[in-house]
Formats: sequence, structure tokens, C-alpha cells
Amino acid sequence: MIRPLDKKIRSSIKINKKRVQQRLDKLSKFTIPERPWTRRAFTDDYASARKWLIKEMKSAGLVIRLDAGGNLIGTIKGSNSKLGIIASGSHIDTVMGGGRYDGMLGVVAALEAAQSIYESGIQLNHTLEIIDFLSEETSDYGISCIGSRAMSGNLSNKDLQFTNTSGENLGQAIKRIGGNPKKLNAPLRSKNELTAYLELHIEQGRIIETSNKQIGVVTNIVGILRYEITISGRADHSGTTPMHLRQDALVGASKFIEKVNSLAKTFQRTQGHLVATVGKLSVLPNATNVVPGEVRLSLEIRSDNKKRLNNFLNTMIKWSKIKIDKQEQLQIKYQPLSVSNPIFFADTVINKVANSATSLGLSWMKIKSGAGHDAGYMASLCPAGMIFIPCFDGRSHCPEENITIKDAINGASVLTHALLLLDNQES
Amino acid sequence: MIRPLDKKIRSSIKINKKRVQQRLDKLSKFTIPERPWTRRAFTDDYASARKWLIKEMKSAGLVIRLDAGGNLIGTIKGSNSKLGIIASGSHIDTVMGGGRYDGMLGVVAALEAAQSIYESGIQLNHTLEIIDFLSEETSDYGISCIGSRAMSGNLSNKDLQFTNTSGENLGQAIKRIGGNPKKLNAPLRSKNELTAYLELHIEQGRIIETSNKQIGVVTNIVGILRYEITISGRADHSGTTPMHLRQDALVGASKFIEKVNSLAKTFQRTQGHLVATVGKLSVLPNATNVVPGEVRLSLEIRSDNKKRLNNFLNTMIKWSKIKIDKQEQLQIKYQPLSVSNPIFFADTVINKVANSATSLGLSWMKIKSGAGHDAGYMASLCPAGMIFIPCFDGRSHCPEENITIKDAINGASVLTHALLLLDNQES
Repeated sequence: MIRPLDKKIRSSIKINKKRVQQRLDKLSKFTIPERPWTRRAFTDDYASARKWLIKEMKSAGLVIRLDAGGNLIGTIKGSNSKLGIIASGSHIDTVMGGGRYDGMLGVVAALEAAQSIYESGIQLNHTLEIIDFLSEETSDYGISCIGSRAMSGNLSNKDLQFTNTSGENLGQAIKRIGGNPKKLNAPLRSKNELTAYLELHIEQGRIIETSNKQIGVVTNIVGILRYEITISGRADHSGTTPMHLRQDALVGASKFIEKVNSLAKTFQRTQGHLVATVGKLSVLPNATNVVPGEVRLSLEIRSDNKKRLNNFLNTMIKWSKIKIDKQEQLQIKYQPLSVSNPIFFADTVINKVANSATSLGLSWMKIKSGAGHDAGYMASLCPAGMIFIPCFDGRSHCPEENITIKDAINGASVLTHALLLLDNQES
Repeated sequence: MIRPLDKKIRSSIKINKKRVQQRLDKLSKFTIPERPWTRRAFTDDYASARKWLIKEMKSAGLVIRLDAGGNLIGTIKGSNSKLGIIASGSHIDTVMGGGRYDGMLGVVAALEAAQSIYESGIQLNHTLEIIDFLSEETSDYGISCIGSRAMSGNLSNKDLQFTNTSGENLGQAIKRIGGNPKKLNAPLRSKNELTAYLELHIEQGRIIETSNKQIGVVTNIVGILRYEITISGRADHSGTTPMHLRQDALVGASKFIEKVNSLAKTFQRTQGHLVATVGKLSVLPNATNVVPGEVRLSLEIRSDNKKRLNNFLNTMIKWSKIKIDKQEQLQIKYQPLSVSNPIFFADTVINKVANSATSLGLSWMKIKSGAGHDAGYMASLCPAGMIFIPCFDGRSHCPEENITIKDAINGASVLTHALLLLDNQES
């Protein structure tokens, strides 16, 4: 049996920089021309990109299939059929307006890992699967991580009923792109089917860049609480209502937003990692000459600690009762939208990523993911992990999102070697 | 010559309560059925309402014409053709969703004044004009008081170019309803053509109601400064950007809104009447998981004192430079939208309104108007004034806007007698 960690083996694996570059370039061209880089899941552009990807996977020697959740899977058989599967991948869909590398880097790098291993003449012990997950970004049907949810049994019948603006529901959309919604009432993979899952992704933040490191070894994904907050006052004519007679919902909302911001800073300083954001806000009736009668806003809280998440929420609720309801004479309502718990990656996978970076001579740091990823759902099926590379100025989900080809190759190299380590250890 | 102030004369004038009630009811029925009480200027509903109004005016003995500014004018000739014109009126258009009495009360009451004087056999010395001004409410072309602006020479060629969402410009719209935009480059009436203008309106606030009075004798209209404020920060991923690295435009906007509110209260307490409002706000990109990169909001400041208006604005600008630009690391921009100076009504008119209320045995108070009205533009042409009646709970520009028929008749009576006083004094 070949031991992939041998120096000789390592040097025999050639990550093809030009091929990675060409594939990233080619894949990014599947976009709405007037709004790069947009490749929304379920669209014609997305279907064309997948068609191209299937061709590339086949040319790399992979056997292709689409699972019931609409995930595109390319397989290379391992030498020992008794062993589980090692999987790597990400997604090729984007949000509107971009994220040129968000997702697709992980698919292109996983394909490159498989292909470079194959071309070096090494046969892995485990079967290797390269997965392009369906619609990791929040889809037009309202939910995200559709493929990895489906694979891990986290897509409910209720989720499949969500419709897009044209009235098509998610079940119909999955069927349209080749999946089988009828099979999605249970996980598509059993718990012992997979040995490990590893995903490369851009950081989408500035932490690795400002720390002057090359690789982020991801230890966990934060949990997220999302609430819709409604603050109700009374709409009045702005010219005829003296200041002391107003119940201005926007003034109340402003106090709320400031408190969210200052409390998050206090939590971060005194309790540990937490961020909280009011990103979305609408005013009713939203007219220059009317005192705002109602404000709806989103409250999002993220932390790696579930207790801390709830503690923050409860502190805000208590504060609101005194400051918004009583002092401002407004009514505030908290409506839960979604809850995802913090996820911790497997030490075995984390260690192999760190070892790979070290043996490749790359500087690395442990990092938590503040964003959700397919790896979060895969972690419920098998030991999972992630590798981050820096992205320019932390910009993500926008046309300015950028990486260097050097960082991309560093990431692909760490991924390849970590997959070899996972294959070796488990054999 | 008849002296209208004689007790005998006063008792000979019969305000027809039933007729006023019927006209208010009938006129309010010209509405979008599913969104009462909506009668937007320039629409078919508006045209139908005017057609009905012309019929009513004719039945009251008025001679009808439409001026170049699209104002509907009904005239009763006076006995002395050397005297100027006394005018009264308001508007029959509404904002979306209401104001059932806002505007139309003043038109119906002016018509009732003319008709009841006519029916009592009195011929006024002055010619009396009853005016239904075109589009007092902010129109679909972006500006308000179109008819009274046109009449007083305050409608610029630039204003006529403003378009609605269908691409029709204001000049075309005025032409469509029977006006003549080519004649609007100068005031439609000369300064000595009109002797006085008097308008009855609902208060649109709670001051008369909470003071337990029946009539508001309006002394002035506040000036209004309107600005669009843009606060720019940096849009970042809410999950991957730590609190201390954020430039959150919405947090900055919240501090701004709170300051506007608290500063207005301080001004009101220490300097005199002022209200300030942020009524309109939009967030970019406005997504739950993105730190807001930009906020646009409206700042509206109203006061009866021009110096105080500018003082408030300058205090906010200075504060913003320190708190928003420097401390929050955001950029704030002030873009002026509109300026209207405080307007003071003529003492002669104010006194006649007060005298009328007193001689009718009605309780009254002096009051300033926090809202703009056609009378504000008419004040630049001739001595002008306004009469307010209470409206239920101060609600206005909403379906809940309401008055009692008793208050409507009180208002119409004060208007009628004040017009008689104005006719008498000026003869």
C-alpha cells in the first residue's frame, strides 16, 4: 500500500496551476452578462455551467451521477471497497452580483485534487467523491444549502413547498434539474457511508489577511439566530404633531440598533466571540412628512457558543421591554425566523489539515467560520472540516470578491494532501 | 350698501347643514373603492369629482372657469366692479389612502358660503371666487400645491418637466386636465387683483382638540427644510466581519436619528417651536446577512422661525462631522431637497376670523399651521388667512381621518361671516 505522506509521494503530486486558473476563469464566465458574477441555482446559466463541469469531471476520469437532492457527484473508485467514502466539494451557484470564487473554488480545487492524485498514478484506498452541492446560497425558494441539507436529511417536506416568485415550489425545481424530491424525506447517505468530508473555501472575511497567514484551518462554524423585530408606534403628520406627542417607531428602532451594536461589542470583549447585525430594515409608511408608525428589521446573532447566543437574545428582550415598550411607549415584537446551532469540526480532520499546511511549508492559523457552509450539514453525517484561503480585503458576495492564484493553489495543495492523509489514516 | 355685520344680516344667512353633509358624503365617494379615501389629482376619479363639483357650483349660481394652472374657479360677481376679488377655497385631491376631509372640506365650505350668501339675497361688494386648487397634495410628479404655485407664479419651467412613473411630465398633465402650461412662466393673478384669500381646513393635529376649543384662528404656516441625507460605510458579510472592523451605515444612521429627535426636543424647550423628523429611510443592500453599506434618509425640519430652522440644520451638520464622520468612520452627505420659508398671515384677515368666531359664540384659539397649504402660496398674492377645525385624535392623511358635522358647520359659519366682514371692511 502506498503511504501518501512519503516525501516522494508528495512531490509526485502535481497541482496543475494553469488548469486551475483556466477552470476558475471558464466557470466564472457562466454569468448574467450585465451583472457579473451571477450564476443563480436552477437557472439556465447554472445548467450550462454544470454541463461544462460534467465534461471536465469526465475528462479527469470521474464517474458522474446526480443524486436525488440535485447534487452532482463525480467518483473515483478506491482500492478497498470495504472502506467508506472520502468526499470533497462545495457549490457553483452564487448570490446576485457575485462572489466570483465563493463556492466554485472548492469545486474546482476538489476536482484538481482528484485529478492530480489520479495523474500521479496513486490509487486511494477510499473511494473519492467530488461533490457540487445544489444551491448553497439562499435560493429563490428562500432557503440555503439545499443539496447538503438533502444529503444529510435536513430538508423537510415543508421546505419543498416553498415557492419562488413564479410560483414554482422547491420540490418541482429540484425535479426540474434532475433530482427526485420524493426521496428527500430521509438522509440520502447513511452515517457510516462517509469517512470524511473536507471543503476548501474563501474566508469571506479579513482575519487571515490581516494576520498575514496563508491558510485558515477551520475549527467550527458559528450558530446563527435570526429574528424579525417589529416596532410599532403611531403614524402622525410630521408637521402637526409636536415632539412630545409622538410615538416614533424609527426613533425606537434607532435605540434598538445602537443597543444591538454596543451589546455585541460588550459580549465580544467580556464573554467571547459574538457578532450581531441589523442588516435589513423597512419603515411604514416611509414618507418624508409622516412620523414613522412601524419599523420592521432583522436581528441576526452569530456565535460559536449556543448559551452565549441565547444570553444575548434574552438580554435584548429584557432591555427592549424597559427601553422600547415602557420608556418610548412603543410595542416591540420578536418573531423567530431561523435557528442554527454552532457546529464543531472533527479534531481528526482539523489536525490533518494543519499537518498538511505545515508539511507544505505554509503559514496557517485556526479560524472559525462566521458564515454557513455545506460542510456544516455534512458534519452531521461524518467527521468534517474546512480549509480557508484569504480573500482580498475580506470582500465577498460582491463583484469585488477576489483571490490570488497563489492562494488558490495553496488551498488546493493543502486540500489534496489532507485528503491523502485522511485516506492513509483510515486505511 | 348692506352692512353684513348687522345682527339681522347675520341671522338671515342660513348655512345648510344637510347640503354640506350631502356634499361631503358625495365627494368622498369619488375614491379608489378598495383604498378609501383616495382621489389622486390627474386621475379619472379626480376628473369625475370635478365634473360633479362643476355641476354643484353651477347649481349654486356660480360662473365656472378653469385657469391655466388647472384650478377650477366659480365666480359670483360683486356690486362694485372697482373692488378686488375675495377668494376662498382649498383642494379636492388626496394622498393615497386618505384624508377624507383634508382639502375637500374647504372647497365644500367655500361653496356653501357663496351659496348661503346668495340665497339670503345679499350681493357682496367684491366679486367672490370659490377655488378648487389643482393637486395640493404631493403629486405623482413630485411636487405639491401645483395650482396655488401656478396662480402665484411659483411653478418653474423645471417643475413642469418633472415626470410621473409613466413618463408623462407635469406640463403635459396640466394640459391633459385643461390647463395651459405655456402660460405658467408668470403669476396668473396680479398683486392688486385679489383683496383677500381665506381657507377653511381641518387642523391635522391634536392641538385644538386637546385645548377643548372649537375654532383655530391660523396666524402663520411654518417654514420647512427638507434634506436627503446619505450615510456611507462599507457593506460586509455579517458573519465574517468582527464588530470592531465594521463601518455600519445603519448604526451611524441610528445615532443620527436619535440626535435629530433629542435636539428637536431641546430646541422646542429652549428656543421655541420646532419639529424635526426622519420619516423615510432605505438601507443598502438591505439583507439580513450583510452589514449595511449605505443608508439614505429624509430629514425634515419645521419651524415658524427661519433663523431657528437654519440654526437646527447647522447644529446637526456640525454634530455629524464629529460623531458620524470622525467617530463612526462613516461619510455623511446633506443634499437639500426643498426650502419653504415661514409664512405669516395678514393681521386684517386674522382679526376678522377671530371676530367672526366670537360673534358666532364659538370658542377659539390662535394656532400655527405645521402643514403647508394653498393659503401659503396665496399669501404672496394678497392678505391671506386660514381657519382650522378640530379633527378626531389629530389623525390625518389616513382612512381614520374624521370630523364632526357640527365642527364642519362651525368652520363654514366662521368662513362665511369672515368673508362678509372682509367684503364690508374693504368696501
